[in-house]
Amino acid sequence: IPIKTLNQGPFEAKVDSIISLMTIEEKIGQLNLPTSGDITTGQAQSSNVAKKIEEGKVGGLFNVKSVEKIREIQKIAVEKSRLKIPLLFGMDVIHGYETTFPIPLGLSCSWDMEMIKKTAQMAAKEATADGINWTFSPMVDISRDPRWGRVSEGSGEDPYLGSEIAKAMVHGYQGDDLTNNNTMLACVKHFALYGAPEAGRDYNTVDMSKIRMYNEYLPPYKAAIDAGVGSVMASFNEIDGVPATGNKWLLTDLLRTNWGFNGFVVTDYTGIYEMIEHGVGDKYDVAALALNAGVDMDMAGDSPTIPAAFVKTLKQSVDNGKVKMADIDAAVKRILTAKYELGLFENPYKYCDTSRPTKEIFTKENKLFARKVASESMVLLKNDNQLLPLKKTGTIALIGPLANTAVNMAGTWSVATKQHLSNPLLEGLKTVVGDKAKIEYAKGSNIDYDLDLEKRATMFGKEIPRDGRTDKELMDEALAIASKSDVIIAALGESAEFSGESSSRTNLQIPQVQKDLLNALLKTGKPVVLVLFTGRPLAIVDENKNVPAILNVWFPGSEAGLAISDVLFGDVNPSGKLTATFPMNVGQVPLFYNHKNTGRPLGNNEGKFEKFKSNYLDVRNEPLYPFGYGLSYTTFNYDNLQLNSTKMDTSGSVTISVDVTNSGNFDGKEVVQLYVRDVVGSVTRPVKELKGFQKIELKKGETKTVTFKLTVEDLKFYNSNLDFIAEPGMFQIFVGTDSNASLSSQFELTK
Amino acid sequence: IPIKTLNQGPFEAKVDSIISLMTIEEKIGQLNLPTSGDITTGQAQSSNVAKKIEEGKVGGLFNVKSVEKIREIQKIAVEKSRLKIPLLFGMDVIHGYETTFPIPLGLSCSWDMEMIKKTAQMAAKEATADGINWTFSPMVDISRDPRWGRVSEGSGEDPYLGSEIAKAMVHGYQGDDLTNNNTMLACVKHFALYGAPEAGRDYNTVDMSKIRMYNEYLPPYKAAIDAGVGSVMASFNEIDGVPATGNKWLLTDLLRTNWGFNGFVVTDYTGIYEMIEHGVGDKYDVAALALNAGVDMDMAGDSPTIPAAFVKTLKQSVDNGKVKMADIDAAVKRILTAKYELGLFENPYKYCDTSRPTKEIFTKENKLFARKVASESMVLLKNDNQLLPLKKTGTIALIGPLANTAVNMAGTWSVATKQHLSNPLLEGLKTVVGDKAKIEYAKGSNIDYDLDLEKRATMFGKEIPRDGRTDKELMDEALAIASKSDVIIAALGESAEFSGESSSRTNLQIPQVQKDLLNALLKTGKPVVLVLFTGRPLAIVDENKNVPAILNVWFPGSEAGLAISDVLFGDVNPSGKLTATFPMNVGQVPLFYNHKNTGRPLGNNEGKFEKFKSNYLDVRNEPLYPFGYGLSYTTFNYDNLQLNSTKMDTSGSVTISVDVTNSGNFDGKEVVQLYVRDVVGSVTRPVKELKGFQKIELKKGETKTVTFKLTVEDLKFYNSNLDFIAEPGMFQIFVGTDSNASLSSQFELTK
Repeated sequence: IPIKTLNQGPFEAKVDSIISLMTIEEKIGQLNLPTSGDITTGQAQSSNVAKKIEEGKVGGLFNVKSVEKIREIQKIAVEKSRLKIPLLFGMDVIHGYETTFPIPLGLSCSWDMEMIKKTAQMAAKEATADGINWTFSPMVDISRDPRWGRVSEGSGEDPYLGSEIAKAMVHGYQGDDLTNNNTMLACVKHFALYGAPEAGRDYNTVDMSKIRMYNEYLPPYKAAIDAGVGSVMASFNEIDGVPATGNKWLLTDLLRTNWGFNGFVVTDYTGIYEMIEHGVGDKYDVAALALNAGVDMDMAGDSPTIPAAFVKTLKQSVDNGKVKMADIDAAVKRILTAKYELGLFENPYKYCDTSRPTKEIFTKENKLFARKVASESMVLLKNDNQLLPLKKTGTIALIGPLANTAVNMAGTWSVATKQHLSNPLLEGLKTVVGDKAKIEYAKGSNIDYDLDLEKRATMFGKEIPRDGRTDKELMDEALAIASKSDVIIAALGESAEFSGESSSRTNLQIPQVQKDLLNALLKTGKPVVLVLFTGRPLAIVDENKNVPAILNVWFPGSEAGLAISDVLFGDVNPSGKLTATFPMNVGQVPLFYNHKNTGRPLGNNEGKFEKFKSNYLDVRNEPLYPFGYGLSYTTFNYDNLQLNSTKMDTSGSVTISVDVTNSGNFDGKEVVQLYVRDVVGSVTRPVKELKGFQKIELKKGETKTVTFKLTVEDLKFYNSNLDFIAEPGMFQIFVGTDSNASLSSQFELTK
Repeated sequence: IPIKTLNQGPFEAKVDSIISLMTIEEKIGQLNLPTSGDITTGQAQSSNVAKKIEEGKVGGLFNVKSVEKIREIQKIAVEKSRLKIPLLFGMDVIHGYETTFPIPLGLSCSWDMEMIKKTAQMAAKEATADGINWTFSPMVDISRDPRWGRVSEGSGEDPYLGSEIAKAMVHGYQGDDLTNNNTMLACVKHFALYGAPEAGRDYNTVDMSKIRMYNEYLPPYKAAIDAGVGSVMASFNEIDGVPATGNKWLLTDLLRTNWGFNGFVVTDYTGIYEMIEHGVGDKYDVAALALNAGVDMDMAGDSPTIPAAFVKTLKQSVDNGKVKMADIDAAVKRILTAKYELGLFENPYKYCDTSRPTKEIFTKENKLFARKVASESMVLLKNDNQLLPLKKTGTIALIGPLANTAVNMAGTWSVATKQHLSNPLLEGLKTVVGDKAKIEYAKGSNIDYDLDLEKRATMFGKEIPRDGRTDKELMDEALAIASKSDVIIAALGESAEFSGESSSRTNLQIPQVQKDLLNALLKTGKPVVLVLFTGRPLAIVDENKNVPAILNVWFPGSEAGLAISDVLFGDVNPSGKLTATFPMNVGQVPLFYNHKNTGRPLGNNEGKFEKFKSNYLDVRNEPLYPFGYGLSYTTFNYDNLQLNSTKMDTSGSVTISVDVTNSGNFDGKEVVQLYVRDVVGSVTRPVKELKGFQKIELKKGETKTVTFKLTVEDLKFYNSNLDFIAEPGMFQIFVGTDSNASLSSQFELTK
């Protein structure tokens, strides 16, 4: 539903008539999105921002929480300001609201589009019940660099899967009708290419060719636009040497002219002023650059050094001709249109029903869903000798600094979460096991030997109190418990703020103190299950070698402990599949499945070194775990790959079918994956690309025939002229359980 | 001297008249550059390639060595083939011929353009004395990724310095007159962008924006073209999705049309057939693609699976219209022109004077020069408490697997070196010390714990025989010697084939077995000097912390041991400056001095973590050693920075002067460096860029005033339209001893 089609006709006349009444200050005010600053409930009227609202100098606020507060602020806008224009209330509702789902990277591993859509719906329901009408989500930045902290906030490395998820999220937030009071305006971000910072360092320069942009990084943004997303957030990075926030090619030529986007563009926080540091001008220059490029709304700083850019400069820039009033009018029009589309002019308190929060936020039902979602997002990385699922008997030692930390369970960027109410693993385990087994707990180690690093990785109230004991005392306590247990669950990995914004790492391993703990636990000879918390792909070669069972749980959200326990004991059979490659070491980065072949590909699949082929001296090319990888407690056999034809023309299709059998001892779910290789192109093409997937459920012993249909649309790519075309010739297809899928066939696209 | 100006007039008519006589097979033959295969002296006439030469199917040969053999082969071409067209004889003469200079990365650290030019002159003199008339050098690929093995073969990360070196090398090889018998045709490579393989893995995909290409990677190739280089080698990688070898934009539009290149283009070895693996067509397609893109000569494979591409396909492709005869003629014309320019038609045996080799190759004089060059290329990384220079007294323990290996001294890609004749450190040390001090030697460790990795890193006759003793026995022997010494010289690092082609590493540290040895040596309490052998920037944080003195010697070439000893004992005061950044760890890669500022630069220079700024959680942004860094035994003070004007217009200039004083206790050389920052641009500009340097010599206590002149040409860059322009505004300048230069001033470029 492109936002334009939402009754824009009637709105247009109304919007124009409002604009005709506005002073230039009021117009610029609509483009201003300040933080709410010091507002606390009951004091809104006397706050600094209240005065600005009253003067018509604010178009919306962000990260104000609670319906009472929002109602109070909205009241100022619609009762005290001259033109009574209601405000937008935005928030980072990223992976749930108070009911928190797994971090987006984890959620993407469910490969369940309906479920993902429902998480966004539920988030919208809770957020709108609390007064919010606009979320800065979905974040759809493709990333291939696990050093980058915000890899946790995206859906991994694949443009096809990323596009599907972008679509599901937009539909989830915005629903079919934005005028409902339980749907909200979505905002796709960070436009564009934010996931490719050089050296994996957040905010760093991005650089790539246009053809890579179009084929590999832009598709999810476009998918969100095509799904009707109402707003777009400009990214911090530069593109072709021009910051996105001031990049007219990006925000106007591509976004509006080529893609037909009709909503509005907002900056990321302080994005306009940051262009001064980028070195493209002074505050007047950069604000004018942003407006002229296509930015409509300024998510503004609020300090003396970084004040609101538009508010402080645009009037003067109109006066001296740096910007045109018509462009300001266009931006105002887009923002007022969005407010109409949300129904705010009709009822500015539409999202301010004070009876909703207690009925709709963080409810039992919602938490139950969060528990299910979390368990569906976990990825079983290793399970030697069917160590998992565990039995609810005997003595279970739960060891590790992440075993009993409620505040870390929601992961990064979960602004509305009441993090102390999340369910930590120790509690969840006790609940699920009940009195059937004995749970013994020890912390075992701190998060890191380095206290300073630990603090950075547990910011924003996610502290894991540093244990006063020495490392040895902590470990000894753990070993004493472990040695008396039947099985050890080691809850290790990253704390929540090891990933997220401005949380890039150059070391991709589990922190050394925890590795030392793990090794000591392994030496007890007891079976060890590693429950791995992480916000990024980690290089866990040692763990993969030495630990019999590894369950990657990411950060599972509100119901973490219960969900993990559901999986550990087999109440849920894990079915998550990685959406980002796990490298062998940081030196392999970037490593991703849909790479080009190069002219000197390695001639063997065993990772044997070959001189004068494209490989390293010291590590093989393959990842530790490939894209699409994930085990189950049962096993799946693939057989009988069939194509209905070995040729298709540009108006035809090929139907691919494969028989998948649950050949193990548990009912389970499997993500059946279809990859395509365009054998010869006018430009080089990836060795394979995901072009379809289906998550199916199979009873023990059951076989299902899964079919995929490919049309010419699925074979298109952007060529050297950036035309989106399919080229006749052979296409190989691969079907299987992960991106190493080996069942293979081929067909020809004819002219 | 653009090659066109070398009497092209007269050649043109001659060339055209030859072409008019040629059959299509003979034309395609001229485009063929096979390996010499199985030829041994005295057997050329009966070899397989001899037959092809006789049939006119060969344009040149590569990597045949010795004047007798080349004379014998040339004789076949000019006496037995129908048209008697002489052959080109090419070779990888990369850093010297038999007299071998430091690897190019090391050589670049001399920052001495005259000396670098002289190395190329000497290489040309030796190579031409041995019959070679064409070198596949200079390699000018900018690289910022120390994982990439061929970083050793280039001149580091900077386009300005890289361009100066490219020019010096071309002038050195080609001289003023290519018809002299001691100059040779140069070949700039690898065109283009080969130094930017993804993940630092050799031959991997390259991707970057056009604006980055133009500003950061293309300048050294262009500098070589402008210096009149006679040939260009296409690179293995793709550019904008099209392999360079088949990239018409690159090889015709940019190279010939925009840059005016008039020489010929050769592929890299098997480059055409590799395009089949790239996925752009079958053997007919890729050969046609190459020719049509602008390739003139096919450096050809010689196996049944990878035969000569042009020879096997072009005739058929002419017949069926895939290629035009006119394009073949153009290629033939360029190659015949080069042969005329070299004077081969006048005297095909011009380079076959059998009396020259013994008089001109690997002479005492040449070796003396190599010794000087090597000592000028070494970089003193650390020297606490003036541990260096050492005194020639007492007992010196020389420990390490690189201490006594002649065959590793020349480093990688030194095809003509008689590597057993190189001077290893043990021998050089004994020679230089004479009987003044006692030298005790022990190997101490193998190169690596991993025997397989060690083998890969000591290929091509560079074996360091694996010691049969255990690691402990080796170390114990070393410690016994070390503990009785007055000072320890630890000769550690990479063996020669740890870098070079297809020698990429994901681990940038000194191999662990050597680190363990070094730590044990440090524990003896004796002063330790680390003599670091390496072909790339290494992450030596631990060594920098623990070892009092570190001398980076790269691979110093033929006279390694003597040159190192010259520096260790102060006969030469080190003056090398890094041309590639040394990172703290591999996770920081790519790390380079001339980066963009980003919108959220770190607000402190002490590497203190700041949330929501562009930095890592676990390591600071700064490198271990920055670009331009290198210590001396003396110290230099910078003072009195002056500009003759704070404004310049586009026809004017600014003269910058600074007083540099030798404030220490040794005479010494210093590379005075000038950096410029373009404060505001229409596109983002680097935080600084090298724009001038001067290597000066200062006596103890002496002061010199160094001046630089900047004109508008120095301030130009490629903007969004790829126009090469300078934009009015403020420019900051920084002058100092490395890229952290802090003496600063500014001026304005006015309209």
